[in-house]
Amino acid sequence: MTRILVVNPNTTASMTATIAAAAREVAGPATEIVPVTSPMGPISIEGYYDEAFALPGLLAEIRAGESAGVSAAVIACFDDTGLDAARAMARIPVVGICEAALATAGFLAKRFTIVTTTERSRVPIEELTQRYGMSGRARVRAANIPVLSLEDPNSGARDKLRSEITRAIAEDNAEAIVLGCAGMADLARTLSREFGMPVIDGVSAAVKQAELLVALGLTTSKRGAYASPVTKPYLGALAEFAPA
Amino acid sequence: MTRILVVNPNTTASMTATIAAAAREVAGPATEIVPVTSPMGPISIEGYYDEAFALPGLLAEIRAGESAGVSAAVIACFDDTGLDAARAMARIPVVGICEAALATAGFLAKRFTIVTTTERSRVPIEELTQRYGMSGRARVRAANIPVLSLEDPNSGARDKLRSEITRAIAEDNAEAIVLGCAGMADLARTLSREFGMPVIDGVSAAVKQAELLVALGLTTSKRGAYASPVTKPYLGALAEFAPA
Amino acid sequence: MTRILVVNPNTTASMTATIAAAAREVAGPATEIVPVTSPMGPISIEGYYDEAFALPGLLAEIRAGESAGVSAAVIACFDDTGLDAARAMARIPVVGICEAALATAGFLAKRFTIVTTTERSRVPIEELTQRYGMSGRARVRAANIPVLSLEDPNSGARDKLRSEITRAIAEDNAEAIVLGCAGMADLARTLSREFGMPVIDGVSAAVKQAELLVALGLTTSKRGAYASPVTKPYLGALAEFAPA
Amino acid sequence: MTRILVVNPNTTASMTATIAAAAREVAGPATEIVPVTSPMGPISIEGYYDEAFALPGLLAEIRAGESAGVSAAVIACFDDTGLDAARAMARIPVVGICEAALATAGFLAKRFTIVTTTERSRVPIEELTQRYGMSGRARVRAANIPVLSLEDPNSGARDKLRSEITRAIAEDNAEAIVLGCAGMADLARTLSREFGMPVIDGVSAAVKQAELLVALGLTTSKRGAYASPVTKPYLGALAEFAPA
Amino acid sequence: MTRILVVNPNTTASMTATIAAAAREVAGPATEIVPVTSPMGPISIEGYYDEAFALPGLLAEIRAGESAGVSAAVIACFDDTGLDAARAMARIPVVGICEAALATAGFLAKRFTIVTTTERSRVPIEELTQRYGMSGRARVRAANIPVLSLEDPNSGARDKLRSEITRAIAEDNAEAIVLGCAGMADLARTLSREFGMPVIDGVSAAVKQAELLVALGLTTSKRGAYASPVTKPYLGALAEFAPA
Amino acid sequence: MTRILVVNPNTTASMTATIAAAAREVAGPATEIVPVTSPMGPISIEGYYDEAFALPGLLAEIRAGESAGVSAAVIACFDDTGLDAARAMARIPVVGICEAALATAGFLAKRFTIVTTTERSRVPIEELTQRYGMSGRARVRAANIPVLSLEDPNSGARDKLRSEITRAIAEDNAEAIVLGCAGMADLARTLSREFGMPVIDGVSAAVKQAELLVALGLTTSKRGAYASPVTKPYLGALAEFAPA
Repeated sequence: MTRILVVNPNTTASMTATIAAAAREVAGPATEIVPVTSPMGPISIEGYYDEAFALPGLLAEIRAGESAGVSAAVIACFDDTGLDAARAMARIPVVGICEAALATAGFLAKRFTIVTTTERSRVPIEELTQRYGMSGRARVRAANIPVLSLEDPNSGARDKLRSEITRAIAEDNAEAIVLGCAGMADLARTLSREFGMPVIDGVSAAVKQAELLVALGLTTSKRGAYASPVTKPYLGALAEFAPA
Repeated sequence: MTRILVVNPNTTASMTATIAAAAREVAGPATEIVPVTSPMGPISIEGYYDEAFALPGLLAEIRAGESAGVSAAVIACFDDTGLDAARAMARIPVVGICEAALATAGFLAKRFTIVTTTERSRVPIEELTQRYGMSGRARVRAANIPVLSLEDPNSGARDKLRSEITRAIAEDNAEAIVLGCAGMADLARTLSREFGMPVIDGVSAAVKQAELLVALGLTTSKRGAYASPVTKPYLGALAEFAPA
Repeated sequence: MTRILVVNPNTTASMTATIAAAAREVAGPATEIVPVTSPMGPISIEGYYDEAFALPGLLAEIRAGESAGVSAAVIACFDDTGLDAARAMARIPVVGICEAALATAGFLAKRFTIVTTTERSRVPIEELTQRYGMSGRARVRAANIPVLSLEDPNSGARDKLRSEITRAIAEDNAEAIVLGCAGMADLARTLSREFGMPVIDGVSAAVKQAELLVALGLTTSKRGAYASPVTKPYLGALAEFAPA
Repeated sequence: MTRILVVNPNTTASMTATIAAAAREVAGPATEIVPVTSPMGPISIEGYYDEAFALPGLLAEIRAGESAGVSAAVIACFDDTGLDAARAMARIPVVGICEAALATAGFLAKRFTIVTTTERSRVPIEELTQRYGMSGRARVRAANIPVLSLEDPNSGARDKLRSEITRAIAEDNAEAIVLGCAGMADLARTLSREFGMPVIDGVSAAVKQAELLVALGLTTSKRGAYASPVTKPYLGALAEFAPA
Repeated sequence: MTRILVVNPNTTASMTATIAAAAREVAGPATEIVPVTSPMGPISIEGYYDEAFALPGLLAEIRAGESAGVSAAVIACFDDTGLDAARAMARIPVVGICEAALATAGFLAKRFTIVTTTERSRVPIEELTQRYGMSGRARVRAANIPVLSLEDPNSGARDKLRSEITRAIAEDNAEAIVLGCAGMADLARTLSREFGMPVIDGVSAAVKQAELLVALGLTTSKRGAYASPVTKPYLGALAEFAPA
Repeated sequence: MTRILVVNPNTTASMTATIAAAAREVAGPATEIVPVTSPMGPISIEGYYDEAFALPGLLAEIRAGESAGVSAAVIACFDDTGLDAARAMARIPVVGICEAALATAGFLAKRFTIVTTTERSRVPIEELTQRYGMSGRARVRAANIPVLSLEDPNSGARDKLRSEITRAIAEDNAEAIVLGCAGMADLARTLSREFGMPVIDGVSAAVKQAELLVALGLTTSKRGAYASPVTKPYLGALAEFAPA
């Protein structure tokens, strides 16, 4: 049995439920999805500031998961919050949902558009497309949807998302769509059918990438940038996080 | 049952056997690997010229496979020979082993080195690292091994490969190694243990990426660059390949 | 006498005639243009799939031409189909019409727009602008003209081309126009006068670049990426193409 | 009086003293340097993991400083830890020492080398050179010096630093040197004289850039990526950081 | 007392007055601004041709200034005319106003738009954004204002500038504005207040950067690209400029 | 008869003779080479400073040549001194020898090395490789040869050049060599034979590119960046250069 930890780095349990459902829908028969909600930090991650405070809870959960024997971890926020820190800390593979979604889109289309929630997230995601080598192939659009409004079927958020996809096809010549928020994880299949083109959700993509890495017996490199943190004291409120 | 076609685009059946074994070793329990050897063209692909003549056999096999109901196809040559043409032709996902290996390495390490066979393949693979957005993270080295010498345990090829990996660690600060030839598919796990770092084989990576895309219900985009070929006559010896 | 082979890699002889006329119009007095139509493959090249099947006929013609003593070869399709394979095979210079047109435009303007035929060709040509280092200077537009409609004066194709050039000037601040299809080779001078700006045709540009390379006594490098193919068997229908 | 907060995001007060001295040495007569040591987190920042846990203390200090009326803040760690989060939070200008050092070097030399402490920091700093548009001009070298050994005159750290600068001149054709750690802040003038070329320290550069922004009356943009965080609850141990 | 030479490389003294006023408004109490107008060349610099003829006068003034003991020089034209030549010639720091403005904008915003005068200057400034590593963050717009019309309050130039800034916010998602002409130096504070976002003028930015470099005791590198010119004869009308 | 002006922008007539000989050796039978030596400025161009003072003489000669009816102009210095200014001024095509050499090398090899004279020219030429989109394919080496020593057969300059080419082959995997100085124009054919690979001289390449542009009836774009200079006064010693 492969156990994959899926961490929602924000503190909203209902979003974790959406994420967990999407994860379980695609998980293989021998995979157990272990969903967790970060115990501390913002109730949603919208921009750089929220990201910063999502880190301690997120890393604590991944550390706990690794100790408890999970085989891999997924960070279920489209900003790939804390991905590098998590990889430096862990030996198990850690997968971000933006990274996984972009890699997946790259197998299916030459040009694609990421539709995210708010303007505060647009530039951070553009920076991720650069980091992952996709800036020449991917555009980023914000549908102006607060993250948590995705949880509310009457918020109009889904209509705004559909409108933005329509614009991406017309104006960007998008060949595929990437959903730029973990809170959209339940919509990919419906929208894929509706628009007749690949619509990719990062949560399900990341779960499958994590399974893939486990199946291949691969773990995070411990040379260079992801070498294990040097043993040292951490002071004050964060002392418990000190690498040992 | 998911059937994945694994096409060796060169015409050497013994290499197909190596590839098929690597593919089966990682395939999921519900996956059937369907290995085929291209019926026509070069006995190994070393550089741009050989690539060109590997295309008709390769594309014929993928077309036949799709007609016969396979769920996805893998192109088992590290040049990702014919990948774009195959995607334009097919609706099923098609995965190249270089693309899959690079995406996989990207989840595990910041910097990595691809060790390929001969100098003729070095620049083509450098071009692939650019195409896949990895040129800032990946270096390419040639171990000066003729492709088919990998089939011969007494050729000294594996020793040369090991020496080149050692140089990659020392000179490139490589954090992971990607094996840059389908004929090395059987060596990844051994070398991974030996060098204590991720050593990634493209064949197994591509098989798992193909399973992933099938599991997610995703198929090649038919908009834009991968739109189905226009119906038109093909003349002469290649008439049978005309899109209809 | 310098003999320059001009290969139309599609199988439509009337397009070869257009190409040959454009080539002869600019050829020097000591140059003989040797036009050939590929004997097998698609009647027009629109996208990646058609490109793949244009290769064997194209390469056969260049090989035959080199044996017959031509001094250089031009590949007269704007996708620069098979250019790298041809260079690896040949010692004579081989010039692609996209590459030649972009180099030429670069001498005359800082920013320019390539107007090609169909959406299927837009992304492949964008990839060529990147390969040739011009992606920061060149945009690509598709006028939605099937390639062979250019042969028919009543198809409305030329009007669509003019409209797209007008849009390129207004929206892209284009300082020059590159015609993105060999089938437009007869239009450059007329459009240049009409729009009062450089309008560049790849066929004539490539013929002159080929003359230039011959005049300078330069031939394709046989080191590294373009080293002559390794002698080896080719099996099946393609055996005749084996490098020896 | 311009008050500039200089935050040492690690928790080692002796390093703050080194930093404060370097800051005061260059501060203008009308500038008061307000040095603070982060109250929680790692005693030195060496790689991605330590960075993550430096954020809460760092951001708390900048928030407190802004409330207390400082005019600008400097983040005195060469990883530019938390820079984007701080800018989203604050209205005052926030300057990172890597960013300031690279901008400064760019005014004096075409090519330069950053000499940092350990291998764990090399790739993160390479990523910063890309983020700041300097990757074509800057190389990064690690002298293999633990950060805190810089505090100990008998550690041999300074000799290793000198050796690495010598290699940068010989092997990189470096025209200037950037010291890649806040703990080297006291060495710039000495090394500059010694090597007869610009040797740039980020702490002093950042203090002056902060003065510059204050003098010009410029503050962080509150549009787009740095828009103020959305008001929302933060749960658990981090509730006090919630944007309001 | 720090004396900073501010050279207006065009020959219009009234523009020098505007520039000098902007420089003095931001100069520190211990800084003396030494404004000079180039004694020969174009009355305004609009495009590559004018730039070429601004060089001799500009370089003569910087040489004279350095001999007279100024501590640094600012080149007050947004094309950064002659910046590399001046740095090769001088030991004192030399700062261009485009370079300074871009560095400054980079501390305050992720994405910004440069609004310049005429179309002839748009591409040259786009090339500068590339040279300074900001092409992914900065767009360039021309407001179609002749440079000298900025001197005339009734020319409508300022209204055009405001309109273009409005478009930059709406169409580029600009988070900050950079004024792309030395002749706009008096407008930054007003426009900043008016638009509620950072509006950056290069003259004041460059003066402060020059002060910064002087305060840090840094001078232009004399290794590599900026090594002092080789002693040699200059013939004819330009003999007086020969490096000795 | 096509008359091509070949301007040596330095003031050394013996180098003009070398250049003119190389130009005539490759010129077509209907081409007349019109060599001129700049009447004022440096006796050799080594770095940014010398470049600046080569401009007035160079542009004066091109203006005079265009008035006298030449069909095209070549700027025979490998820094492509004044190329953009010349194109803005002229309607005839203007070709730089670096640009022409790089375009030519691109038709023959994937990777190549430019061997120039001195360290002062290395970075400027690296910047040109970026401007022409070749930075991923071209490396630049300096052989440490003063420019004028190439005129002296006993200076040892040619031996140093040969040694540097040998290193380029061994260390850069160079597939072709570009000679990075107009003063090497006579050596290309000899070195090409000697090293068995393409060795490209910019002077001959540029002459042929100029012939090509003339034969195609193409002239410099007068839209955007190369629009004719605005009519305006030029003051002082440079008044004669004012655009009218």
